[in-house]
Amino acid sequence: MALVPPHGGKGLVCCLLTGSELEDEKKRAAGLKKIPISAQAKGDLIMMGIGGFSPLDGFMTKADWKGVCENMLLSDGTFWPIPVMLTASKADSDGINVGDDIALEREGEIYATMNVTEKFEMTEEDKKWEAEKVYKGEGEDSQGDFLKTALEDHPGVQMLMARKEICLAGPVKVLSEGEYPTKYKGIYLKPAQTREIFEKRGWSKIAALQLRNPMHRSHEYLCKIAVETCDGVLIHSLIGNLKPGDIPADVRVKCIDTLVNNYFVKDYVVQAGYPLDMRYAGPREALLHATFRQNYGVNRMIIGRDHAGVGDFYGLFEAQEIFNKIPYATYEEACKVPGKALLCQPLKIDWTFYCFKCDGMASMRTCPHTKQDRVILSGTKLRKMLSEGAEIPDHFGRPEVLAILRKYYEGLTEKVEIKMQKAASGEDMK
Amino acid sequence: MALVPPHGGKGLVCCLLTGSELEDEKKRAAGLKKIPISAQAKGDLIMMGIGGFSPLDGFMTKADWKGVCENMLLSDGTFWPIPVMLTASKADSDGINVGDDIALEREGEIYATMNVTEKFEMTEEDKKWEAEKVYKGEGEDSQGDFLKTALEDHPGVQMLMARKEICLAGPVKVLSEGEYPTKYKGIYLKPAQTREIFEKRGWSKIAALQLRNPMHRSHEYLCKIAVETCDGVLIHSLIGNLKPGDIPADVRVKCIDTLVNNYFVKDYVVQAGYPLDMRYAGPREALLHATFRQNYGVNRMIIGRDHAGVGDFYGLFEAQEIFNKIPYATYEEACKVPGKALLCQPLKIDWTFYCFKCDGMASMRTCPHTKQDRVILSGTKLRKMLSEGAEIPDHFGRPEVLAILRKYYEGLTEKVEIKMQKAASGEDMK
Repeated sequence: MALVPPHGGKGLVCCLLTGSELEDEKKRAAGLKKIPISAQAKGDLIMMGIGGFSPLDGFMTKADWKGVCENMLLSDGTFWPIPVMLTASKADSDGINVGDDIALEREGEIYATMNVTEKFEMTEEDKKWEAEKVYKGEGEDSQGDFLKTALEDHPGVQMLMARKEICLAGPVKVLSEGEYPTKYKGIYLKPAQTREIFEKRGWSKIAALQLRNPMHRSHEYLCKIAVETCDGVLIHSLIGNLKPGDIPADVRVKCIDTLVNNYFVKDYVVQAGYPLDMRYAGPREALLHATFRQNYGVNRMIIGRDHAGVGDFYGLFEAQEIFNKIPYATYEEACKVPGKALLCQPLKIDWTFYCFKCDGMASMRTCPHTKQDRVILSGTKLRKMLSEGAEIPDHFGRPEVLAILRKYYEGLTEKVEIKMQKAASGEDMK
Repeated sequence: MALVPPHGGKGLVCCLLTGSELEDEKKRAAGLKKIPISAQAKGDLIMMGIGGFSPLDGFMTKADWKGVCENMLLSDGTFWPIPVMLTASKADSDGINVGDDIALEREGEIYATMNVTEKFEMTEEDKKWEAEKVYKGEGEDSQGDFLKTALEDHPGVQMLMARKEICLAGPVKVLSEGEYPTKYKGIYLKPAQTREIFEKRGWSKIAALQLRNPMHRSHEYLCKIAVETCDGVLIHSLIGNLKPGDIPADVRVKCIDTLVNNYFVKDYVVQAGYPLDMRYAGPREALLHATFRQNYGVNRMIIGRDHAGVGDFYGLFEAQEIFNKIPYATYEEACKVPGKALLCQPLKIDWTFYCFKCDGMASMRTCPHTKQDRVILSGTKLRKMLSEGAEIPDHFGRPEVLAILRKYYEGLTEKVEIKMQKAASGEDMK
């Protein structure tokens, strides 16, 4: 059995230049007009660079944007669930015409050059329409005046509405992977690399666990169900940007290492990270997660409770249900439109927890007992307990992992205390 | 999504007569020549009666037998893994000619009539060849002089070699389901009935757990992995004949009821029994289990360690591996030959157990710890401990289930004691 092919039917589309091509383009880029880009666009560019966003080779045109928002289809009929846009202010884009080459820059570094094939305005109304189409869900926070609530509480919608008014579309040449190859050495793997690992191991049915939080018993259980039923599992952490207050990637990676070392059979696990920022788009982002995982060689995307959700914008299992509603939703239909359809299928798992009566991990599908029998902790409560050094209930997490998190929170507290001491002594004022 | 179609592309082929047709045929049967049949053939007939053996509508011809032994294909190219033969002694079959109608009888009851379309001899050499093709595995007991070892220790091969020398092939009309509808009321479900239940529940991805032993934590774990990843699970017990010393079906059914009531969410479980005898053919029988499960509406057959094995005749995971070696082994290939290929896929799960360090159930794929951390009991040792009233190690089985088994074994001991007392007092001699 072979690995699932990359999405889009064109193999891995990698826009990253190397060798002398890279050096020449860097020189050329220095002379081009520079456009500042967002952190999100930087992540998108690196994904295009390494083939993670195959078949995309640049930012979307108006037709692509419209098709993706409306039907999750690019203008050529290929499935894609979330817009990938490059925007610039009117001032920055002034004088840029179709046909021009520009350089895309962030914090002093040029990440790519782009040949502009289309320039179009995106009004406030357009963005609001996109927000409704892409980010609105069935959860409580999406009811009533969704946009008002989202503007206050939805980081994804906030980023969308903060996008500039001019869109620039066109193919890119990527010049840099930023800090990822050095900062996350050994963890930051490109799709070609995970594919090589899977092939060497003889795997073809491969599940991915999406992670943006530390891994506790419930995530471990999802992962182990995948190990029991697939050839192996890719524990795939977001190493791009998160909301403030979330646990940084290096701490999470350390937690996963420890967990894998102590509680997994290593032959069946690969740990890696990918350079995207969270969009918190719930169901649509779950589809994006499955789409780019296909490029990494994965054909089963684990979708648990409130996948990629934020606040109460999405129904707890809306990110599972959307897989039944996409174009070419069944594997049979998908096989009929080679290259166009998503081939990475969801591995849907219910709300999981430890249950004393079950004497082990379980989910709402397998445990007939009551709330009182189960160990359930909200993320907020857990963070509070960890930062206060409180005892975490038995069976919630692995002691080795909790020790790492405790140390991290102690460090945070120390930093805050030092800051407060400095403030009290007037040191900060000097 | 629809249920998987019955195997063979002809819908459910049910040879059981009902109503006036049944009454008329019963009268007609009384006047036909009677052939005594084995317990195995009785089970096979009932399966043909209720559609469990679709597309078979009778016992196999020589060409079918040869194709099935050699390539697992009937003469028309349809997948079938194990011969289903009717045999008679030379004396009993004397005077029976092709074209004749005969009645198939066991213990005074006529189970079917058959129109003989072929009559052929099966020599000792033929049976030995079948044994080698169908029953020989890769385990230790299959090495060396397989036939010699098998004749001593393999109940399936013993039954095969005890078959009579004349084979009679032809379509059957089934007249009786024997004791099953009354003795196992509510448990003995026909394929049409399980299909109706699955359809009512809206299931389409359905796993089956094959059971011939009481259900302990390890079986519960297999079942729960299926519940986590499929729409639901059919706990499907063999209620035909087993080897001496095995636990009778009514006790097993009671154990399952208790387990399901206390440890499962009932919405995701159906319990049923099927009327076949065990053949102990390991890998080939695992395929048979998947084949007839497809008729019951199941498309995922749980295959664990040493499925349908006996002694050390089969490699621990040979029954999983054979699914990769059958004709049309991949789902893609199977879809290309509608009706011919097996569509019920294996759900392969490794050796499972409770592990103290994992703090729950695990398998060799998910637990990195050592033998000492795991609760593993052989069936033999368990039976010994239960019959001696010894304490079973924690986490091996559910207390409610063990209580039922203890009671059964106490009853057995009492019976033996009463027998011994009677023998001692000479009562038996009266």
